[in-house]
Amino acid sequence: MTGTLDIVGVGPGDPELMTLKAARLIGAADLIAFFSKCGRLGHARRVANGHITPGVRELHFEYPFTTEIAVENPRYLADMGVFYEHCAQTLGDELQSGANVVLLCEGDPFFYGSAMYLYDRLRAHHRCEITPGVSGMSGCWSRAGTPMTHGDDVLSVLPATLDEDSLVARLQACDAAVIMKLGSNLPKVRAALARAGLTDRAIYVERGTMEDEIIQPFAELTRAKVPYFAIVLIPGRQGAR
Amino acid sequence: MTGTLDIVGVGPGDPELMTLKAARLIGAADLIAFFSKCGRLGHARRVANGHITPGVRELHFEYPFTTEIAVENPRYLADMGVFYEHCAQTLGDELQSGANVVLLCEGDPFFYGSAMYLYDRLRAHHRCEITPGVSGMSGCWSRAGTPMTHGDDVLSVLPATLDEDSLVARLQACDAAVIMKLGSNLPKVRAALARAGLTDRAIYVERGTMEDEIIQPFAELTRAKVPYFAIVLIPGRQGAR
Repeated sequence: MTGTLDIVGVGPGDPELMTLKAARLIGAADLIAFFSKCGRLGHARRVANGHITPGVRELHFEYPFTTEIAVENPRYLADMGVFYEHCAQTLGDELQSGANVVLLCEGDPFFYGSAMYLYDRLRAHHRCEITPGVSGMSGCWSRAGTPMTHGDDVLSVLPATLDEDSLVARLQACDAAVIMKLGSNLPKVRAALARAGLTDRAIYVERGTMEDEIIQPFAELTRAKVPYFAIVLIPGRQGAR
Repeated sequence: MTGTLDIVGVGPGDPELMTLKAARLIGAADLIAFFSKCGRLGHARRVANGHITPGVRELHFEYPFTTEIAVENPRYLADMGVFYEHCAQTLGDELQSGANVVLLCEGDPFFYGSAMYLYDRLRAHHRCEITPGVSGMSGCWSRAGTPMTHGDDVLSVLPATLDEDSLVARLQACDAAVIMKLGSNLPKVRAALARAGLTDRAIYVERGTMEDEIIQPFAELTRAKVPYFAIVLIPGRQGAR
């Protein structure tokens, strides 16, 4: 009898925005696994805290780096590959020995989640199930009180890592947009929004749904540095109906 | 003391994919309101069923029509406007008299949800809070076992109501896509996917996360008619890491 890997989205940050299914699976797991930045516990583990059975085994996978090395650097892909391979091997051994494993994920696992790299490696030989979660962007636009897409609006989700011209072209081709992974890309995003004429419609959200969230018009954002996980919302056409 | 309007996303269909917060708010409401197609109970009410206090008051808003009249028909906008105005008036009166109202929503309220039309009318004069939910598309791609967006992938969410040329152009400009509101637009979507060279990557999902869900390669979809809420997933670049 081999175990099941449940890849479980825990939602955008507020622990109450976890699903009933996530809470049940977390409470019943033989082993809880999660990623985090080196030296931190990580959002996912913190969000799940109230549902983890005291004393249950935990596997803490610390990323070798997060934003310290640029994605374009060949070392990034190589080292992350080695890291994910190690995580997959470790989880694979646990599943083989019969443990039911819950891998915690911020937001929604299949939407820019690291867990996909383990799923891709384990799915061929192990039973893997996905429990979707409320995405970070849904948490952010709900807290911002900003309806995002009505009727026939096109929504584009754009990583801020795209070059400035691509950002401008894509912003101009949609009705509503979410720009993810802001961090050090802030000056480029600021320039792209201005060129696309969208600065005044844009909303800045940091740690949406968490206790220390920040929500403000992008035009009023004066800080030079923002976190990697901060996002920008550009709501679609507002409801005429 | 006036009441609060909680607009609550109940998730994609599986009742266990409701959030803890949604379950709590639904259980504590003085009044449960929900939309549905004429003559039906509706998905949102069915999903919430296990959490509604027996005997609590309910307000059932039946759409005057759903797909019977084309969106382009001037009667569509006019009649829907009258309908939403009536719903907002009714809820406003309840809030005024002190009732705490939960308005149930399929999926995530601010993501193509009808509740936005009431929020837009009520927010100026009443306390309105949004509880995000797992979106229909997250439910679908999780059940399909298909990671959607890795790393720098751009995701576009496209209503199938766009014209064929727009669909083709937008499909070619993104890495991953979701095509919503399939229904009678199926032949057009089929043609657009073929022209964009994406038929073989596309996955068809109907009633994802519900008991009678259908998931199959789009290329094997032979039916001429599909429901309005069916969607097509085009996963992004698959994980190389």
